[in-house]
This record gives sequence, structure tokens and C-alpha cells, in this order.
Amino acid sequence: MKKINVMQDVLSSNEIIALKNHEYFKKNNTIVFNIMSSPGSGKTSVILETIKKLFNYKILVIEGDIAGDIDAKKIEKSGTDVYQINTFDSCHLNASMINTVIQKIKKRYDLILIENVGNLICPVEYNLGEDYKIVILSVPEGHDKPVKYPKIFEKANLLLINKIDLMDFSDFDFKKLNETLKKLNKNLQPVKISCKKSLGIEEWINWIKEKISLLPG
Amino acid sequence: MKKINVMQDVLSSNEIIALKNHEYFKKNNTIVFNIMSSPGSGKTSVILETIKKLFNYKILVIEGDIAGDIDAKKIEKSGTDVYQINTFDSCHLNASMINTVIQKIKKRYDLILIENVGNLICPVEYNLGEDYKIVILSVPEGHDKPVKYPKIFEKANLLLINKIDLMDFSDFDFKKLNETLKKLNKNLQPVKISCKKSLGIEEWINWIKEKISLLPG
Repeated sequence: MKKINVMQDVLSSNEIIALKNHEYFKKNNTIVFNIMSSPGSGKTSVILETIKKLFNYKILVIEGDIAGDIDAKKIEKSGTDVYQINTFDSCHLNASMINTVIQKIKKRYDLILIENVGNLICPVEYNLGEDYKIVILSVPEGHDKPVKYPKIFEKANLLLINKIDLMDFSDFDFKKLNETLKKLNKNLQPVKISCKKSLGIEEWINWIKEKISLLPG
Repeated sequence: MKKINVMQDVLSSNEIIALKNHEYFKKNNTIVFNIMSSPGSGKTSVILETIKKLFNYKILVIEGDIAGDIDAKKIEKSGTDVYQINTFDSCHLNASMINTVIQKIKKRYDLILIENVGNLICPVEYNLGEDYKIVILSVPEGHDKPVKYPKIFEKANLLLINKIDLMDFSDFDFKKLNETLKKLNKNLQPVKISCKKSLGIEEWINWIKEKISLLPG
């Protein structure tokens, strides 16, 4: 008897739409980041700092929130194009929500920053068609989060440690964090920043510029 | 034509099990808290402070985590009975998970403290059979969280604002928080605490003692 391995890439419906989104971004030479974290880790602050430093680039922000548009209003005030998605009961963005935004885009962008819903668990399960997954962990949350919520750290391409200005008032232990990361995702080097005190932002900005420079054309 | 309103209490399967759990707790004269927050707001620290102050009471802790047993080990070290539930991909506890623990309980407890998975969105959708829903918000997360994640604040019976020792390094605005709470849940009075500096814990402990004193017998 011969065995035949029937390999079927049964992509879930989310994956199919994520692929379509990715094709659109690629065709337009646009780099896309899916920015994820717990509530209150500083996703919007990171985005505001990024926009400020990359003023020479064409940037679009997509804000994902259960309710309200507080963050989108902050982005709008900076003069950057922004779309607000309200997910209501859904604890994460999905590819279809991003596709709805794509249908409305009328310009080409260098960079699209997607701020996912504040949640360290489910967002990582749903590809949006992005190029890179960015996870933010803030110092007051503690160094043990990757032990308790491993998947998002396993799949992330970059880890920003925000609020390092609070290190003196915290038990956050970088040695322990690095030990955990070594086991989960040894390529994940944490970049230490403080949006409030404008610390470490250059390293993050250089990382983005490098990714943009890799675009063809 | 006459209209007949067919009122059917079609309880979801979770609600049916939650009701069973609640009956068990009631029969045993046990008060049960479902403690919810974002990752890193201080659920375990609150539980450890509570255990310390209520050493005269029979307490059980149920720890809900995606992965690992870091927190359960901390509780165990304090000499308190503890069960660890690992939810793997599930971003919240459900009534069935708690029922599994109930099947194993061999003693009567005055108080059961359930630490839900760190998530400000989904846990509130799943009743566990608890008497009270406690939500913790920590100062570094920001006062705007109830605007962005309203449901958990709408349904909570008590709100603990943890890490008030970080107020001096934060833009947290109690006035704005109270304005939001007034619209969402006007009975929700925030209790300000710092587990790290042992501030405000008495008010929380008195609230618990009052609830225990209401038990019949």
C-alpha cells in the first residue's frame, strides 16, 4: 500500500481575505504594521511619536476599538489620515474589517499603522495582511507577561518595551524577560522606549526606515 | 389581532452551568468574586493582599491563565488553597471550567476569589456563577479605558483603581474617569488602592467583610 499525503491549504476565510489585503499592500508598495498590546500599554502614543518622526512619509493610521474614537481624534489632530473601526463585541480586528477600509482608500501610502484592539490574546490569531506584527509591553505590566500570554510574543516581529521611565518604580526584570523570550522567540529583541520622555524612539524609527528602504522602487 | 409575547428565557449553555455553580456556592454559604482586568493591572497582588488581611477566613483562589502557573505558585506559597485553570487559546474563563473545579472541592469556604484571564473585553460576557464582578484598572493604563472598553465597567459591582502610587508619574484624571462612570454605571464608586504601598486596602477589605456578614447563618 502506498500512502498519499493530500496536502490541502485549507485557508480559513480570514486567511483568504488577509492574503487579498496583503496583495493590495504589496501592489501599492506599502509597508503595513499590526500593532498589538494590552489596553493602556501605549499603542496610540507609539503611533503619535512615529508620525511625528516620519513626517516625510505618507502614513495612514487605522484605529481598532471596541467603542469610541478617542484615539482616532488624537491622530486626526496631528494631520494624519485615519480610519476608525469600531468592533463592538469583537475583541480583535480581522482581515475583513481591514478590507472594508481598503475599499475606501483613495491614495497610496508608504506606511499603514494598524492599532489593534487592546488585548494580548486574540488579535494575534487573525492575520490582517500586514507585513510585520509589533507587540508593545509596558513596564508597569510586568516582565512575566510573555510566560502567561506566549503566542503574541512567539509570532511578533518586534517588541517595544514602553514606559521605561517607570523602571525605578517597578519590579520589571529585563533578565527574566530575556530568558523567557529566548525560549519563545529568540529573534525578538526588545527595543526599550518611553513615549512620554521621548526615549529610545530613534531605534524604533530606524527599524521602520530600514523596512521602508527594502521596498522595491 | 392579539399579540402574544412568548417570553422564553433561553439561557445559553454557559448560563445554565453558571446557575448550577451559583446554587452550589449559595448552598455552601460561600461568597464568590470574579476578578477581572487587563494583563498586569494587579489581580494577583490584590488577591495576595486580601488573603493576608482576611487570614481568619476560609479562602479558596481559582487562577485562570492562558498558560503557566506563576500566580498560582505565589498563592500556594501564602498557604492558601488554590486551583490553576489553563485555558490555552480561550481568552476568558467560563462556567464549565469553574464547575470542573467545584467537582474537586472537598471543603467549605467563606470566600472564593476567581482570578480571570487578563482581558478587559470577553471575560465579562461569561457568568461563572459568582456573586460579584470586581474590575481592576491600574493608573498607568489611563482613565480613558471605560470609554474604550465599556461593558466590563457597566456590569462591575466594584472598581479597584490600583497602583495609585504611580499617580505622580501619570496623566490619570479621576475627574474624567468619574464623568465616564457616571454615564456607564453610576453605582460604581472607585476604590483607590496601591498593593505595592499597602494603600487603601482597608476600604476594599471592609467591603468584603460587609458582603460576608450578609451571609445567612
